[in-house]
Amino acid sequence: MSLEFENAKNLVNKLKNEPDNDTKLKLYAFFKQATKGKCNTSKPGMLDIVARSKWNAWNELKNMSQEDAKNSYITLANQLYTSENPNDESSTKNDAKFENILASIEFGNVYKIIFNRPTKKNAFLDKMYLEIISALQEAETNPDVKICVITGAGDYFSSGNDLSNYLKETKEPEKTILQGCKLVEDYVNAFINFPKPLVALVNGPAIGISFTVLGLFDLVFCSDKAFFYAPFTRSALVPEGCSSFTFPRLMGHAKACEILLFNRKLNAQEAHERNLVNHVFPHAQIDELYKKKMEEFSKLNLDSLIESKKCLRALNRDQLMKTNHNEMKMLEKRLLSGDFMESVMSFMTKKPKL
Amino acid sequence: MSLEFENAKNLVNKLKNEPDNDTKLKLYAFFKQATKGKCNTSKPGMLDIVARSKWNAWNELKNMSQEDAKNSYITLANQLYTSENPNDESSTKNDAKFENILASIEFGNVYKIIFNRPTKKNAFLDKMYLEIISALQEAETNPDVKICVITGAGDYFSSGNDLSNYLKETKEPEKTILQGCKLVEDYVNAFINFPKPLVALVNGPAIGISFTVLGLFDLVFCSDKAFFYAPFTRSALVPEGCSSFTFPRLMGHAKACEILLFNRKLNAQEAHERNLVNHVFPHAQIDELYKKKMEEFSKLNLDSLIESKKCLRALNRDQLMKTNHNEMKMLEKRLLSGDFMESVMSFMTKKPKL
Amino acid sequence: MSLEFENAKNLVNKLKNEPDNDTKLKLYAFFKQATKGKCNTSKPGMLDIVARSKWNAWNELKNMSQEDAKNSYITLANQLYTSENPNDESSTKNDAKFENILASIEFGNVYKIIFNRPTKKNAFLDKMYLEIISALQEAETNPDVKICVITGAGDYFSSGNDLSNYLKETKEPEKTILQGCKLVEDYVNAFINFPKPLVALVNGPAIGISFTVLGLFDLVFCSDKAFFYAPFTRSALVPEGCSSFTFPRLMGHAKACEILLFNRKLNAQEAHERNLVNHVFPHAQIDELYKKKMEEFSKLNLDSLIESKKCLRALNRDQLMKTNHNEMKMLEKRLLSGDFMESVMSFMTKKPKL
Repeated sequence: MSLEFENAKNLVNKLKNEPDNDTKLKLYAFFKQATKGKCNTSKPGMLDIVARSKWNAWNELKNMSQEDAKNSYITLANQLYTSENPNDESSTKNDAKFENILASIEFGNVYKIIFNRPTKKNAFLDKMYLEIISALQEAETNPDVKICVITGAGDYFSSGNDLSNYLKETKEPEKTILQGCKLVEDYVNAFINFPKPLVALVNGPAIGISFTVLGLFDLVFCSDKAFFYAPFTRSALVPEGCSSFTFPRLMGHAKACEILLFNRKLNAQEAHERNLVNHVFPHAQIDELYKKKMEEFSKLNLDSLIESKKCLRALNRDQLMKTNHNEMKMLEKRLLSGDFMESVMSFMTKKPKL
Repeated sequence: MSLEFENAKNLVNKLKNEPDNDTKLKLYAFFKQATKGKCNTSKPGMLDIVARSKWNAWNELKNMSQEDAKNSYITLANQLYTSENPNDESSTKNDAKFENILASIEFGNVYKIIFNRPTKKNAFLDKMYLEIISALQEAETNPDVKICVITGAGDYFSSGNDLSNYLKETKEPEKTILQGCKLVEDYVNAFINFPKPLVALVNGPAIGISFTVLGLFDLVFCSDKAFFYAPFTRSALVPEGCSSFTFPRLMGHAKACEILLFNRKLNAQEAHERNLVNHVFPHAQIDELYKKKMEEFSKLNLDSLIESKKCLRALNRDQLMKTNHNEMKMLEKRLLSGDFMESVMSFMTKKPKL
Repeated sequence: MSLEFENAKNLVNKLKNEPDNDTKLKLYAFFKQATKGKCNTSKPGMLDIVARSKWNAWNELKNMSQEDAKNSYITLANQLYTSENPNDESSTKNDAKFENILASIEFGNVYKIIFNRPTKKNAFLDKMYLEIISALQEAETNPDVKICVITGAGDYFSSGNDLSNYLKETKEPEKTILQGCKLVEDYVNAFINFPKPLVALVNGPAIGISFTVLGLFDLVFCSDKAFFYAPFTRSALVPEGCSSFTFPRLMGHAKACEILLFNRKLNAQEAHERNLVNHVFPHAQIDELYKKKMEEFSKLNLDSLIESKKCLRALNRDQLMKTNHNEMKMLEKRLLSGDFMESVMSFMTKKPKL
């Protein structure tokens, strides 16, 4: 059992006020799913109301993976504890350092970052960018970490930039946009410069910047339920995440234009054919197959991995940094144009089909 | 009905001298094919000579596409009118500005350039390069144009450079070659620097420079009847159109060498696999499928398209210009060598099988 | 019959001392296999001892290709002759100039280099690198040579660097390593700068540097029995042969990392899909199919081939030289670390499965 999960159980035991029934049932269900998997016992009799409620709660989780259930348990436990102990940072686990992501050593030498706003399809808030940058720094400096893996909680990998970042009430809208673009530039640079192997585990749809940044990963695994979509020109925007540099190098200029200019959505298999993805896993086996790979890879020599990656980046690091900067200058210009605001308004009223 | 077609009908009506019977039958046949498609009425009786002649003329066009028939009608109408009114430029349509291409707004915001020497497999004459450069400038500066599409009339996309360009009688053969290479360099630069999305609709075989330049397009659609062939080393020449830069980036060095050094001919499917082509369309549906895409794409935001394309070109524009220049210097050298003339002579006596 | 084979027959005739029976049977068997192919006569009777021994020796070669048999005959003949005439360099063929490779004009304008340490899986000794560099110079300067082909004798293309290069007894281990890296840098530069078309005929497994250098070839053919493997990080090393530059350009960054960081072994078909290989040949037909191609290609104009290749290399020669140098600096560092020695020791005690 992982440290975080163990810790979360302790937090629940330390709660002074008993949670309401619904919450208790949720905790029960996540715990069972996390430790036993899908509900596999027979339904208790009509009259055994408590047992039957618990059974129902567990059964409702259906095919949720054990990994997801564990993460949901951890998140819920932390929420309950923090609401009782708002200032007690020391007692909460590593995960609790962050609001929008979970981040910790998963097993062996593997550090895992989980985008954790499942109800918002893991859309990136400004603050979430900062949290991810900070988690990457932790993975870089911790000498026990050999590999960093990034994935999403729930059904989505991430739906990309949260539009609400650009719709904040502000007296200085221009300054807000410039700051927002600077933040995204820092975020992308954190990927360009991450020195250890970086693995994406794309558990579901990857949209916008969560998609474009994939060109900077050293390995990309995805679920067969994932799709990949970057509708920039539909929102009157431009590509980011260095995709204007990496995508043509993966699949050629014209196939990159299909995605970045003409909004072609790719399914998992297409993303594999276009060299964006190394392996497509059947959704039900994604955790198991990914762990098998990680166990193998985390035995490799860390210095050798870092220096091999340095060789591969040697001649294009500067070009990537320059591309990132160009893209952000272009994005600033687009965001300051009326076109974008118009497209956002139209998006708010009628959502495009994904 | 398109503006050009409408205009061509008017030109025919304005003719002062009745064309000969053959020409009238051609006009009739192209018109029917353009508006009704393939001949689908029953053959008139033996004695109804006029109706039977018209039916025959129409029926002989067989599976010619409505698009091609329309273009053929427009070309013929313009020829007839211009031969009567050599100085009347104002009354003729845009298309009539050019001898070897057709160029005008097709529909919506789509500007279409058609290589129009179908009896010569759309081989490029020196003058034709200039006309295409000029049409590209028109597409660039016309604010209504969002996308420029290039295709060929008849069975071929283009058979490439017309060898007659190099076989002109001249007192200064060296000067002729230098000028020819300068012209091709300008031609290729016009593609490198075209700022709006550029789409190729490869209706049939693409040979030599009509093939190599495809690496500079933002989208390439082709017919399943198309093939792609660049037999430079068979003619003792070298690659052009920036293919020595773009092809290795599309498919890797060794697969690019197969085509550019070792004369491997690709069919449509192979061109798709090697990232030269986005979609292969069944020949009969090429117009319909391409229009569907264009209707969708021409709704996108123009500034966003232009700036996205600028991002993608940012780091390689200089390299493309430099490659183009290198290739042309190398080509000059080859054309001035005896080897090329020898291979042309042998080509004239026995044509290689394509 | 090739010149070398003819020459080898003469050497055998010139031998003063009759070889022992086993050797004579080997010569007989290689000769029959080389000239007739697989043993196809019926087994001689029990009492015809000599005929039966010869038949057995031939029959034991099973499916060895005629090409391999010819090379084995040539090697054996040279060995026998040279052991009798250690100072007679003039009488031995071109091949005999080298200890670890065979190199000569094969047919037409094709120069062939054969890695020739089949009992050591053609692993590269320091001296062998020098011999290959020297053979490449010969192919470059000989005006009759249009194309240079490289292949391996026996079952392997090559198992890569011979670890014994690094395990020599030496008073100055650091100096030995620096010299070894300098030698590999020279070796890889010889490939980067070879001006004529360079073809690899990968007859079997290609490991380590024999694999990574393939990105510098202009055409790569392989047997369907070949596989490709570069387990650098398992030995605590880093990629070489410019693979950190060429592999990402062939298949994208993440798929290159799979091979160069995470030791993914590719079969022939996968190497084709990842643009490392132009054609996969059925093993039994590899010689025949390759020769057909070479006969076609060696008719092309040499200047045109050289200048076309120059166009393709124009913008990346400097980057390749720089990558090679970077990789070697990184390799020096790794070899001087304790990690590598440790991994070698563990390799010596338990061999990893290939």
